[in-house]
Amino acid sequence: MKFNGRNVFISPTAKLGRNVRIGDNTTIYDYVEIGDNSTICNDVVLGEPLADYYVNPQYRNPPTVIGEGAMIRSHTLIYAGCEIGNNFSTGHRASIREFTHIGHHCMVGTLCDLQGYMRMGNYCRLHSYVHISQTTTLGDFVFIYPFVVMTDDPYPPSDDRAGASIGNYTQVAVHCVILPGVAIGEHCLIGASSVVNRPVPSYSLAVGSPAKVLMDVRDYSARGKRNLYPWMPRFERGMPWAGMGFEDWAAQQIDDSEKMTRNDESTVEHLQSCDPSPRR
Amino acid sequence: MKFNGRNVFISPTAKLGRNVRIGDNTTIYDYVEIGDNSTICNDVVLGEPLADYYVNPQYRNPPTVIGEGAMIRSHTLIYAGCEIGNNFSTGHRASIREFTHIGHHCMVGTLCDLQGYMRMGNYCRLHSYVHISQTTTLGDFVFIYPFVVMTDDPYPPSDDRAGASIGNYTQVAVHCVILPGVAIGEHCLIGASSVVNRPVPSYSLAVGSPAKVLMDVRDYSARGKRNLYPWMPRFERGMPWAGMGFEDWAAQQIDDSEKMTRNDESTVEHLQSCDPSPRR
Amino acid sequence: MKFNGRNVFISPTAKLGRNVRIGDNTTIYDYVEIGDNSTICNDVVLGEPLADYYVNPQYRNPPTVIGEGAMIRSHTLIYAGCEIGNNFSTGHRASIREFTHIGHHCMVGTLCDLQGYMRMGNYCRLHSYVHISQTTTLGDFVFIYPFVVMTDDPYPPSDDRAGASIGNYTQVAVHCVILPGVAIGEHCLIGASSVVNRPVPSYSLAVGSPAKVLMDVRDYSARGKRNLYPWMPRFERGMPWAGMGFEDWAAQQIDDSEKMTRNDESTVEHLQSCDPSPRR
Repeated sequence: MKFNGRNVFISPTAKLGRNVRIGDNTTIYDYVEIGDNSTICNDVVLGEPLADYYVNPQYRNPPTVIGEGAMIRSHTLIYAGCEIGNNFSTGHRASIREFTHIGHHCMVGTLCDLQGYMRMGNYCRLHSYVHISQTTTLGDFVFIYPFVVMTDDPYPPSDDRAGASIGNYTQVAVHCVILPGVAIGEHCLIGASSVVNRPVPSYSLAVGSPAKVLMDVRDYSARGKRNLYPWMPRFERGMPWAGMGFEDWAAQQIDDSEKMTRNDESTVEHLQSCDPSPRR
Repeated sequence: MKFNGRNVFISPTAKLGRNVRIGDNTTIYDYVEIGDNSTICNDVVLGEPLADYYVNPQYRNPPTVIGEGAMIRSHTLIYAGCEIGNNFSTGHRASIREFTHIGHHCMVGTLCDLQGYMRMGNYCRLHSYVHISQTTTLGDFVFIYPFVVMTDDPYPPSDDRAGASIGNYTQVAVHCVILPGVAIGEHCLIGASSVVNRPVPSYSLAVGSPAKVLMDVRDYSARGKRNLYPWMPRFERGMPWAGMGFEDWAAQQIDDSEKMTRNDESTVEHLQSCDPSPRR
Repeated sequence: MKFNGRNVFISPTAKLGRNVRIGDNTTIYDYVEIGDNSTICNDVVLGEPLADYYVNPQYRNPPTVIGEGAMIRSHTLIYAGCEIGNNFSTGHRASIREFTHIGHHCMVGTLCDLQGYMRMGNYCRLHSYVHISQTTTLGDFVFIYPFVVMTDDPYPPSDDRAGASIGNYTQVAVHCVILPGVAIGEHCLIGASSVVNRPVPSYSLAVGSPAKVLMDVRDYSARGKRNLYPWMPRFERGMPWAGMGFEDWAAQQIDDSEKMTRNDESTVEHLQSCDPSPRR
């Protein structure tokens, strides 16, 4: 139903892998590269040109790379200069600005707004309406729920950028605000509607405005259930340990020389090499 | 201005009633049925196929039914499998996922995101940016204001779904979070930015994080006005008692054997028959 | 890349200035006027007809005026009847309803929803996901951050409209709720996630739910920095004092008979002449 070639525009400089489907009304601008077995649904825009395009006749679109097995849902907008790993998926009407680096197996939900110049690891999931400011860093397996905003301006308005960071396996519940430069550790659970204004140690359950650490997340129980966190042993859908269990998978990771790519020093270098004050 | 047939796609299996207008750039997929005297504006997508469509060559779109007198504003996206009553209207860019059941005379506002597998009664109004998770149940005459999120995951991440429920005539003000499984009664008023984490009895004015019952809503006054709630005697626009008053209308309802359809046991059965863990 | 004339519709009654570019898939309805040197990107809708269009065969679109030097980013929707000054820019998917009056040099960010029948001055910036209700008034240099909602209904649901007002140079941080009719003064800073339910005097730093004045904003320091507010001496990007400094610019304004247009009595008259209860 979706792939009739109706009103499709694909730049001759775009490179599509094998078995890539392009939905109706979709536009793919210059120097976009899409991996094999990807589905780009209808009304999508990929490789959106940067602000310089409108004023510079010599403008050349930076390359946009999307890995294999992508599922880009309708009306998604991805700027040029993004690098995105394999098995990426989006909800509808997601917006991803330039120089966003996304690992493998990530999901960016309906109506999310990623402001670019940021990085997330692997297996991250952003639910609907998540707003991520520039210079933010997310680790692996970070899940963020609707209406969360990660800020970057320490004293608005300014041109300083101080994105926050969130460690591996951490969950941020709906309607939270993460203030600029705040570092949240690994395995945390941040409760709904919290305002996080200072660092949160790993394994914390934190909640409130301003957020306070209530307890070690390993001591948390709800509705008579214990051992809810860390959550990996009880949730497998879409995770690399599906079918084998988290413990076995984790043991294998340590043995395996082909470990997943993690955020590293090169992130910092990359961000420093980007124009730190694009249009807002 | 809007109905020039420009770049319109309508599946041959779609059934349009009499006097149905279809705006430019609109797409109507398989097995969509639209009632008489409906207006489908421009850039709308109806009958969006489910995830299975992309992987299953035998995929067949479930039927999508939209009643008479619909006003679907531009850029709205409605998935296949939805059943929607008469006189439905949307704002711009509303998203409604599969197997959403909506009664008569409902409004779903600009940029709302309904996650599907949910049910709302008659005369409900969702203002802009309302996010409703799966297995949520709304009664009749429920009004929800911007940035409210109704959650469904009791200990994220999990595949459990425990949607909240809201009773007839209840109002939920801006920026509220309704936690999973919470039951809010009838005739309540939930104040702005509240986090509702436990049941709220009918006729409550509740506010705060976590929300506490402040008073019986019938005792509430503001700006020197009394008898503000229940609100039905003082608000008639679009309501079935417009021109006759709520009391007379309510008396007529009791007498009338043609009562409005209400949420009933079949809701539960239906939801149990749906796949409870679609993509998120 | 963007300006190929693909699937473009421009009403013959529209008036485009010199050097106006129109992106692919864009629609411009009747009686839209666009100033010189403007860029209208792809998938934009300008001059969206009002509700009366759908029911009145005699309907005539009210004029829509957009000044010189506009940059309207993709998927923006602007209703008929709006008056917008020079050097206006939008993010993606902004929605602006009828009879919105916007001064010069303003920005309306990605996924904002302006409900119309409102007014903002010059050099205002709305970041992503800002929701502004009817009869709201913003002064000059007002910056509003993501997920802020300015409400207008004093006791929902009602047909009364009591928009809030915000004075010149004030900053409203993320996730704030401004309750109906509240007047916030000039040079204020409203902290993240506040609920403002009563007037805030000029030069206040206010925060909380309900918001309380913590201190004079001139006494605020953060991260060892002082003299952060008023912010004008330390932030110049896009401001009229860029390159000359705020003090010199301000002195020049007082001398200059060509002062910027400010909100004045005519605003009130205009709003009174508008239908106060359009569709919501």
